[in-house]
Amino acid sequence: MDLAALRKDLEGLRIEDNPAIVQQKSRDFYWYSPVLKRQLDHVTGDLVVSPRNEAEVMRVLAACHRHGVPVTPRGTGTGNYGQAMPLSGGVVLSLAEMNEVTTIAEGRVVSGPGAILAEIDRRTKTHSRQELRLHPSTYNTASIGGFIAGGSGGVGSINFGGLRDFGNVMRLRVVTMEAEPRILELSGEDLHKVTHAYGTNGIITEVEMPLAAAYDWVDVIVGFDAFADAARYGNALACQDGILTKLITPVAAPAPWLYFKRHQRFLKEGQSVVIAMVAPHSLDAFRAFTRRERGEVIFDASQVDDLKGLPPAYELTWNHTTLRALRIDPAITYLQSLYPFPDQLDLVARVDGLFPGEVTSHLEFVRFDGNITCFGLPLVKFTTEERLNEIIRLYEDNGCPIFNPHRYTLEEGGMKQTDEVQLAFKRLADPQGLLNPGKMIAWEDPDYNYRSGKTFLFKGLERAG
Amino acid sequence: MDLAALRKDLEGLRIEDNPAIVQQKSRDFYWYSPVLKRQLDHVTGDLVVSPRNEAEVMRVLAACHRHGVPVTPRGTGTGNYGQAMPLSGGVVLSLAEMNEVTTIAEGRVVSGPGAILAEIDRRTKTHSRQELRLHPSTYNTASIGGFIAGGSGGVGSINFGGLRDFGNVMRLRVVTMEAEPRILELSGEDLHKVTHAYGTNGIITEVEMPLAAAYDWVDVIVGFDAFADAARYGNALACQDGILTKLITPVAAPAPWLYFKRHQRFLKEGQSVVIAMVAPHSLDAFRAFTRRERGEVIFDASQVDDLKGLPPAYELTWNHTTLRALRIDPAITYLQSLYPFPDQLDLVARVDGLFPGEVTSHLEFVRFDGNITCFGLPLVKFTTEERLNEIIRLYEDNGCPIFNPHRYTLEEGGMKQTDEVQLAFKRLADPQGLLNPGKMIAWEDPDYNYRSGKTFLFKGLERAG
Repeated sequence: MDLAALRKDLEGLRIEDNPAIVQQKSRDFYWYSPVLKRQLDHVTGDLVVSPRNEAEVMRVLAACHRHGVPVTPRGTGTGNYGQAMPLSGGVVLSLAEMNEVTTIAEGRVVSGPGAILAEIDRRTKTHSRQELRLHPSTYNTASIGGFIAGGSGGVGSINFGGLRDFGNVMRLRVVTMEAEPRILELSGEDLHKVTHAYGTNGIITEVEMPLAAAYDWVDVIVGFDAFADAARYGNALACQDGILTKLITPVAAPAPWLYFKRHQRFLKEGQSVVIAMVAPHSLDAFRAFTRRERGEVIFDASQVDDLKGLPPAYELTWNHTTLRALRIDPAITYLQSLYPFPDQLDLVARVDGLFPGEVTSHLEFVRFDGNITCFGLPLVKFTTEERLNEIIRLYEDNGCPIFNPHRYTLEEGGMKQTDEVQLAFKRLADPQGLLNPGKMIAWEDPDYNYRSGKTFLFKGLERAG
Repeated sequence: MDLAALRKDLEGLRIEDNPAIVQQKSRDFYWYSPVLKRQLDHVTGDLVVSPRNEAEVMRVLAACHRHGVPVTPRGTGTGNYGQAMPLSGGVVLSLAEMNEVTTIAEGRVVSGPGAILAEIDRRTKTHSRQELRLHPSTYNTASIGGFIAGGSGGVGSINFGGLRDFGNVMRLRVVTMEAEPRILELSGEDLHKVTHAYGTNGIITEVEMPLAAAYDWVDVIVGFDAFADAARYGNALACQDGILTKLITPVAAPAPWLYFKRHQRFLKEGQSVVIAMVAPHSLDAFRAFTRRERGEVIFDASQVDDLKGLPPAYELTWNHTTLRALRIDPAITYLQSLYPFPDQLDLVARVDGLFPGEVTSHLEFVRFDGNITCFGLPLVKFTTEERLNEIIRLYEDNGCPIFNPHRYTLEEGGMKQTDEVQLAFKRLADPQGLLNPGKMIAWEDPDYNYRSGKTFLFKGLERAG
């Protein structure tokens, strides 16, 4: 890795080499996981390069290819699994400056990978009252490219499923990591080669995403004495085909009262809640339905005079729930589970109930293959890695797959299987394996035994450590 | 029934008494059913009154109440069950002229009951690229009030369920049938008192409906050699959370080739088809998905140079399928079935297969209580009423409820149970039972035995016959 030669080749580009800043730009929110915190805390790149356009991306990739320097692409670093952390050092390729929104049309928007989700929506709303279908709870800071490469779904998944689904990404423009980088345009089934691949399969330089109608979503919170009732209500609300919502999130006591400090004046200690975003033209129906289901609306943003100081509802949900808990109780971490349809409510009751005082239920209702079901992001009081793995095993033994957020590889996270198509694509797009090394086990160690019971340890990372 | 005195009280209002025109305005598409054709062919009102505003509606109702004259409200008469046919004669209250669209805002539209669905959409599209969530295949001729009072769902139900669902009607303004008619504003759960009640519970004078984003939906037809594959593909497409469709309609061979004459050049004899409406920004994903599922796109309106002479896809679906079949083969009638989730595909295969050569499968995929499933509107070669009832019994014995389109009463149609709440509301809104007499069995004969195996015969109709 001849960094001096590389720097010479990159003359005129924006380069940062102040070690403190480079380290900061080499990190994401991996520290939500005590496991990743231990494994990745020392990880840092050597340089941060910030191309301003696709031509500069191609220049960087050609130069890095020439000098054998790893390249790890990065949006704004809001991931949680070290997606954008450069395990083997080298160049952190910050795409934050490629943030232009270039086209807005009916049902679609085209932008650079660095565009911030909330900023895209500001523009599409102003243009034609449209907004992105899906966003994570890091809406105000996450980039669209990072979301596609490292995320899976979030707010809006109750209507549209996840990024993996046909139609939720329309087109990606990708630059390959070769002596002479090529530009590829991917659509349809080919998109799966690049979505949720952590940038291991090419650098995204342009995205085209579908848009939905934008509404002035109303934040509401419904209170329940028993969490089972909150879960049942959330499920039933999600099944209301005529009530337009964008988010349905049950959170079990004691979490709401303890961790949603800025909403505390609306909450009752010991209550479980369902947080929801409701379209204004569905509010009447939402209220009638909630009355019928004996839910108590304890917060309705359309009825509160002063919302100052209150975060938006989605910043109480998805991984912001974990963040708020962590801020109050640093011992807390989390898991990601799926409660498969149609048994979701039974599974929630059975599985989360296995760990009283240790696991607190947090569900996110979504559409999944056409059915309403829920993911869980349960809050876990962390004691040891052994206990964490035991909890994971108990979830899985009971029929709830875990997408392990305490692993930095694609395969162990479980959101993505690396199949032969994807591997073949990587051979074409990154023949030397310089893109985000260490994240794709199938590439690093094709014979890896996933049933070993051990965590994959990337050799490059061992050396760096 | 002192019609002369009534006419005097109605001076200045638009009244039609030419018997030929009155008879025409007393009919709907009841003749799709040979049973209703036999029972209702002689039905006619005495006068057609066409109020221009709510004040005139109140004047008509007060006068009819005074003189004991039945009032049967009517939109544009596109129903199929005699919903708007005046079984006891009297006044046909045509609301067609109360067709003003008064408010268009984000997510909602307010109009008179007589506004034509397609005309509402023309205005809301021009205003803000919005459109109604749901419409029947009679989009270009049906009125919004008639749809609410006599319909149940249709195109768009794959996204939003049916009119019965919370949120799919926002608000109704209703005038009661009393000495001094009152105006009621209904929302939330109260809407169920008036939706799909055939105007037996008050006269709708204003509606507020939710809107969805309007798109230039692309009509497509996918061909399959076996109907089972068409049904499976339709179900799988409906389960694609990221592919935005508005209509998914499998129709079994030989119907497409025989009955969709104007599309025949695109079809192959013996093929079953799935007709769909796809949002332009989902077309790429739709094509990739269809390739993966081994469907053959045999018609794609976005790729056809000359669409002249081709009806829109939705005019091949819902009850327009029946209409097109009837035009070619007058012996054909139809049924309406539900194939309950999650067994819909098995039930379709089992039930429709019971009647080879006699019943041709026609499915409409919808969301129903949060699940994807399908209704059926199978084409039936009619022989006798006994055989038709036998077919119905076999559907029901096999677990497929039939919404019988050969009955003119609310209860026997099966779309609506008349409960105590509704009956109590009728006592308030129409104490003398003058609104659309003979349609609500619970009112006409509270002790009626639904298990008698016989068809309810409204006494007023017997007399008229």
